[in-house]
Amino acid sequence: MRIGVVAPSSRFSEEAAARVRTIAAAGRPEVEIVFHPQCFLTHNHFAGPDAARAEAFVEIANDPGFDALWFARGGYGACRMAEDAISRLNPVARDKTYLGYSDAGYLLAGLYRAGFPHLAHRPMPQDSMRAGGEAAVERALDWLVDRATAALEPGLEPGRAHAAFNMTVFGLLLGTPLEPDLSGHILLLEEVSEHMYRIDRAMFHITGNEAVRRVAGIRLGRCNEVPENDPDFGENEEAIVRFWCARAGVKWLGRADIGHDSANKVVPFGSL
Amino acid sequence: MRIGVVAPSSRFSEEAAARVRTIAAAGRPEVEIVFHPQCFLTHNHFAGPDAARAEAFVEIANDPGFDALWFARGGYGACRMAEDAISRLNPVARDKTYLGYSDAGYLLAGLYRAGFPHLAHRPMPQDSMRAGGEAAVERALDWLVDRATAALEPGLEPGRAHAAFNMTVFGLLLGTPLEPDLSGHILLLEEVSEHMYRIDRAMFHITGNEAVRRVAGIRLGRCNEVPENDPDFGENEEAIVRFWCARAGVKWLGRADIGHDSANKVVPFGSL
Repeated sequence: MRIGVVAPSSRFSEEAAARVRTIAAAGRPEVEIVFHPQCFLTHNHFAGPDAARAEAFVEIANDPGFDALWFARGGYGACRMAEDAISRLNPVARDKTYLGYSDAGYLLAGLYRAGFPHLAHRPMPQDSMRAGGEAAVERALDWLVDRATAALEPGLEPGRAHAAFNMTVFGLLLGTPLEPDLSGHILLLEEVSEHMYRIDRAMFHITGNEAVRRVAGIRLGRCNEVPENDPDFGENEEAIVRFWCARAGVKWLGRADIGHDSANKVVPFGSL
Repeated sequence: MRIGVVAPSSRFSEEAAARVRTIAAAGRPEVEIVFHPQCFLTHNHFAGPDAARAEAFVEIANDPGFDALWFARGGYGACRMAEDAISRLNPVARDKTYLGYSDAGYLLAGLYRAGFPHLAHRPMPQDSMRAGGEAAVERALDWLVDRATAALEPGLEPGRAHAAFNMTVFGLLLGTPLEPDLSGHILLLEEVSEHMYRIDRAMFHITGNEAVRRVAGIRLGRCNEVPENDPDFGENEEAIVRFWCARAGVKWLGRADIGHDSANKVVPFGSL
């Protein structure tokens, strides 16, 4: 199996790539991981200019020599190249598996909208830099190579369609050309580094949207590294999501085992 | 003239109220400013619970004894009570002038959508606490009492419809029951305390929206207190807004004299 890695968002490092190569070589010698040279470009906030990030994505996606395209990391930037890049994909690209989360959600969303069948929210090469990152990378490969059930988010319901996103990313792609139709889907959301009041505000935006109100329900992943709210917000993230779900008539379906951490589980888009 | 003040968002202080009373008494003895007791409630992040903030707003808005309703300050919280509160307004409320900006934008948006004719983006009582805050409060009153032209944002075009919002607030009300139809309007946007990459991301969201693409153009106010971007974003707020306007086919109409500061000018909603 051959996996191509591109970096559509923030700058990526040779160090993280080396870690991923080491982890994969030890546990998955049958897998070849190719980091596109674009991964190591830098341009301001990003892993290279918009055009370079789009071009690398299109190149790997359209190349029949790769089985999967793995997004190197999140941060910010995929929304600047996603629409253009997706419009340039060929039929070969449709057979490939696309893997990532966080800022890569803009691309997963746009690909899902375009009917691409093989997408999954799951750990990325950058996660190799976390404590416990080895397990995260192994889990990502276990699912990709063997479709290992143990790698999956444990609450996924067979026969039901799912999608998973970072809360802020999902909120900000609503109403744009990247918004997918999630009618009837179970929507899993996670967040990182946002104040409680911003989590509350994001949920106002998300559950206030008519299209989102057609989901089968929402499950909440972890909200990590929440900065201190001044004054204290007085409610935690679960109370917030329950509040907005109740108000919008969206079913609250409990917690989910996803988040910006090394325990982040795999959520394939669509039905299992 | 009698102005009622309510606080639909963050906690407000007696100190700010006292300053506003002093400024108004000196320059505008004919104006009576009544701070609703709700202004001084506290509940977690907010100036009292959602129900209390909604109730105070409805009480002042529906009371024929008040000529105007002034939002005490921004922060966060108006989106939690706006839809419910606006649905409870009576015909008297429609004749009143509503004044504020920042987080109060959720209410201004919902009121504009509901066809309320007298709305303006302009300084709030909390601005009295800024350096130069006296001038801000006086400007707000000059416009309200005398419709003083000097208080107006200088680039407003007679005969054209305008609306002004905080960028984040505007982005997050899109697609919700508070979204107004701004077709043909000149849209003025300002921002405060957001990283450059978040300004970029907000503009992706705003200009990616089909309804927003029907505006006559966008003008950019000040983006104040921008936290350091790591790494440097490499573009300033004007370059960012020009970039997204060009990409979306939205007319860039230059800078605007609004912002989270004491120089913030008045922008009446609709046509002058």
